[in-house]
Amino acid sequence: MPILGQNQYGKAENRVLKVTRDGAVHHVKDLNVSVALSGDMDEVHLSGSNTNVLTTDATKNTVFAFAKEHGIETAEQFGIHLARHFVTSQEPVTGARIRIEEYAWERIATPGPGEHSFVRANQETRTAQITFDGSAWQIVSGLKDLVVMNTTDSEFRGYVKDRYTTLQETGDRILATEVHARWRHAWSDDARPEPDWDRSYGQARRDLLGAFAETYSLSLQQTLYAMGSRVVERGPEIEEIRLSLPNKHHFLADLSPFGIKNDTADGAVYFAADRPYGLIEATVLRDGAEQRIPVDLTNL
Amino acid sequence: MPILGQNQYGKAENRVLKVTRDGAVHHVKDLNVSVALSGDMDEVHLSGSNTNVLTTDATKNTVFAFAKEHGIETAEQFGIHLARHFVTSQEPVTGARIRIEEYAWERIATPGPGEHSFVRANQETRTAQITFDGSAWQIVSGLKDLVVMNTTDSEFRGYVKDRYTTLQETGDRILATEVHARWRHAWSDDARPEPDWDRSYGQARRDLLGAFAETYSLSLQQTLYAMGSRVVERGPEIEEIRLSLPNKHHFLADLSPFGIKNDTADGAVYFAADRPYGLIEATVLRDGAEQRIPVDLTNL
Amino acid sequence: MPILGQNQYGKAENRVLKVTRDGAVHHVKDLNVSVALSGDMDEVHLSGSNTNVLTTDATKNTVFAFAKEHGIETAEQFGIHLARHFVTSQEPVTGARIRIEEYAWERIATPGPGEHSFVRANQETRTAQITFDGSAWQIVSGLKDLVVMNTTDSEFRGYVKDRYTTLQETGDRILATEVHARWRHAWSDDARPEPDWDRSYGQARRDLLGAFAETYSLSLQQTLYAMGSRVVERGPEIEEIRLSLPNKHHFLADLSPFGIKNDTADGAVYFAADRPYGLIEATVLRDGAEQRIPVDLTNL
Amino acid sequence: MPILGQNQYGKAENRVLKVTRDGAVHHVKDLNVSVALSGDMDEVHLSGSNTNVLTTDATKNTVFAFAKEHGIETAEQFGIHLARHFVTSQEPVTGARIRIEEYAWERIATPGPGEHSFVRANQETRTAQITFDGSAWQIVSGLKDLVVMNTTDSEFRGYVKDRYTTLQETGDRILATEVHARWRHAWSDDARPEPDWDRSYGQARRDLLGAFAETYSLSLQQTLYAMGSRVVERGPEIEEIRLSLPNKHHFLADLSPFGIKNDTADGAVYFAADRPYGLIEATVLRDGAEQRIPVDLTNL
Repeated sequence: MPILGQNQYGKAENRVLKVTRDGAVHHVKDLNVSVALSGDMDEVHLSGSNTNVLTTDATKNTVFAFAKEHGIETAEQFGIHLARHFVTSQEPVTGARIRIEEYAWERIATPGPGEHSFVRANQETRTAQITFDGSAWQIVSGLKDLVVMNTTDSEFRGYVKDRYTTLQETGDRILATEVHARWRHAWSDDARPEPDWDRSYGQARRDLLGAFAETYSLSLQQTLYAMGSRVVERGPEIEEIRLSLPNKHHFLADLSPFGIKNDTADGAVYFAADRPYGLIEATVLRDGAEQRIPVDLTNL
Repeated sequence: MPILGQNQYGKAENRVLKVTRDGAVHHVKDLNVSVALSGDMDEVHLSGSNTNVLTTDATKNTVFAFAKEHGIETAEQFGIHLARHFVTSQEPVTGARIRIEEYAWERIATPGPGEHSFVRANQETRTAQITFDGSAWQIVSGLKDLVVMNTTDSEFRGYVKDRYTTLQETGDRILATEVHARWRHAWSDDARPEPDWDRSYGQARRDLLGAFAETYSLSLQQTLYAMGSRVVERGPEIEEIRLSLPNKHHFLADLSPFGIKNDTADGAVYFAADRPYGLIEATVLRDGAEQRIPVDLTNL
Repeated sequence: MPILGQNQYGKAENRVLKVTRDGAVHHVKDLNVSVALSGDMDEVHLSGSNTNVLTTDATKNTVFAFAKEHGIETAEQFGIHLARHFVTSQEPVTGARIRIEEYAWERIATPGPGEHSFVRANQETRTAQITFDGSAWQIVSGLKDLVVMNTTDSEFRGYVKDRYTTLQETGDRILATEVHARWRHAWSDDARPEPDWDRSYGQARRDLLGAFAETYSLSLQQTLYAMGSRVVERGPEIEEIRLSLPNKHHFLADLSPFGIKNDTADGAVYFAADRPYGLIEATVLRDGAEQRIPVDLTNL
Repeated sequence: MPILGQNQYGKAENRVLKVTRDGAVHHVKDLNVSVALSGDMDEVHLSGSNTNVLTTDATKNTVFAFAKEHGIETAEQFGIHLARHFVTSQEPVTGARIRIEEYAWERIATPGPGEHSFVRANQETRTAQITFDGSAWQIVSGLKDLVVMNTTDSEFRGYVKDRYTTLQETGDRILATEVHARWRHAWSDDARPEPDWDRSYGQARRDLLGAFAETYSLSLQQTLYAMGSRVVERGPEIEEIRLSLPNKHHFLADLSPFGIKNDTADGAVYFAADRPYGLIEATVLRDGAEQRIPVDLTNL
């Protein structure tokens, strides 16, 4: 008989908004929360017995109830609270993983004293993944959807030329990417104080942008390493970071058939291509740290 | 034999980026340009003769060449330039419609003197549609993807109660929507000076946000009218505006089964729903103006 | 004071599934229904009074209740039923538009007598739009998402060559498109019997595919006209059809730098491009019919 | 100094179509190919030296050239060919991973002898991932986007009731999911003959559908295990399978406020919900096999 391997289940994409009122000044937290539980679940797979199964519907209800009763300080803190609850309150559940996307809102300035109007920022999506096995925690924070571009200070040459190489070397190209970053915190032990998750996130985001902008790039790999190492160097609470950077190609439009010169010196016109795209991925680690963010080898 | 009715053709979604250098300070314009031409095109449909057909590939080339040779001041100005070219240079072409989406970029602050690093703003997509029939112009500017929310000052009551009405009246609900707005400019005559397109856009965007935030809402229709009329009142260059506002429902989570009170007084928790959603659409016109932005009656 | 122009409101994207049991044999109808109502709605926009407003929530409830009580024979019949209800039962409502997407399911063959297992077909989405103003009906049926390709019997030459034309003429290219078609039925009067909507749909779909496959194409415009005219000629119940056909470009891969010949004679390799794409749109009418399907001039 | 961890790079989403002509009968293979290479790439990250870097552009060219010169028999065979090439021809490259999506096309029947017209099937996307480290192969085949539904023979009861459980037990519910399956083949050694990839795929697809349809379901977990174990039992070439099954909830519409009974006995009407959704994931293994398909623990 075939064997049951790793398994998990839960409710994905619970869209929860919390509004906190400080007089006429309102504050919002807007999250998309996914719960996955694992443990002694052989019977439900083999015989269909639900004796050990907390329903995914109940996990959804828990997310909303906890948002009310315990509040949402940060995505990380909220996820820790939820994961601890599931693992400690349910006998058969021995592991929990909470994934959260957070959407930022900015205030719309208004003349009156009220502050309850918002416009969605949309620049990046903040992410957090909280994993708990009953004793140790793994907290991976991150962001995605952040699109950046350098319009110069990027070259690409000196590469291998094989039979299939036709690319021309260039000393001045556009470097654009959509940053997908996840970083693992050293914190794993309840007994030690948690980092300031918001401060840590703000610092990492600034470091990613700063290193991207300030690196004279000889390759996107080099830029990636500069971004990752700056986050690790300036964030002592961070052990490793995994970056996935699609190379959003911008090709100089070929205007020579029309007798028009189109070089990068000034006023260059580019064609922004969709597919295919280069894809550069790497982990950067604090010296001595272990690589634990799984490499996404099979997500087809 | 069946008759050929209205027809048009062209190249859609030309993704053009232009980088202009002012010393070490770079400026970018990032557009998605779609060209549609119409005119004496019966033969290509009926017999397949391409004698009157300018290829869609050539219209693409024209977009990139014009970006280089004539520059991109604003989406509107660029579209006017293109439309005039197609209608005046091609005998069989008697009408042109240029649609443009524009993506905004913000600077990434860096310590050095160079300013060539950007992060995509992503908050809304600016749009423009330029139509030219050889004599008159129609310019419709707009925006989409702008998500806004009021966490109070919205109620909904006093509505019709029929057999199928179960909705409870409420004196304090969340009002959230994704603004899709298109406004038509009075300008239609080459002989008159064009408006300042960027200033006009900035004003309309501020008015949409301001009216949304400052209106105590008795219905989303009322908020829509407040938004539209503010744009028309403060923008003398604007004749009409069409708004399409999905009601992004946020329902108070029902926590009563768990003995938890969840009212709006403080710390309320909402479930953000996806589908179905209310959809409110209306045109607001300057008194005396004609409604010309087509009502989207059949886009299935 | 700005004037209120055309307006409408309702609940969009009600996802309704109906399962009918014929003993152990089950039948399913899977729809996405959007309701839009119009009428005497000035007050709700101007003063916020909801006196004339049937809630969008009630229109949603009506969709589900009608699916149960009156059944879903076809999308068109269901929409007619709903539209008539809203216009005749609500004093202030003078117009209704029902838009429906329908998803097809195929049976999964099983050894037992039960027939209650399905796999979603996914090939195209069937559409219907029903509009009623209290006296006349307009029924527009259609489909979208249907991707088709001819690997030969398509050429493109003899076109205009202007300064910006670089495209090479070709006598053997791939012609691929994603069919988006909407056709208006002659039926508009309650007193006359309705067409057989399912039979009509099946015939139109076959005609679109057949004309696409059997036309030796000199241009996509010619193919479009052949498709549209076949639908009108073979469907006496149909007055006009609007087709929107993106040209899904497949370019011969340039393998000459590697000394590899890549012509269409055999085993040709193509690069399937995303953007930009040609976009060909036209209406084809029965001789004497009026063009009433709105041309989508401003959907930015 | 931070350490460079696992890294890889390549060109993603090369959209290649190959048309083979057998007289007037044409055959098509339509793939989306992503290449990822790894090896001795420290320098490009640390110093920006591209000495060891084969450009992603060259990997793209290789995909198209190989499609022409070596043909595409199956996605698996094509990926094996590419991976072997990259690892054996490039000194610094020690690992290659090729991911492929394949889109199926059906013929459009035509009266003439030619067979060169196709309609995209769209029912599922076939996938393959080929990994090679210079000695051993790992081949993971799969499919995604396949939506299935049982309209009865599904119940759910006997589960844990905690404080947050409000779900009612049911003896007759709809069970619908979108199948995402990946299965690993035993084949890993060049010296042994490859399986018949197409036959294996067809069998696995039939087994997934058959087990879904024929299982009286007490839980989606049980159905998942039935599907996975049938694939492993009937496919001796398959070692393990990973299934990810979102529970596409269909809730009985509550029509009781309108005095309408809506039970499953006949003509039941359901609301198809989008978010949140249950998500059930598990691996099923041949007895004695090792679990090697990575569990997707961190893809936020």
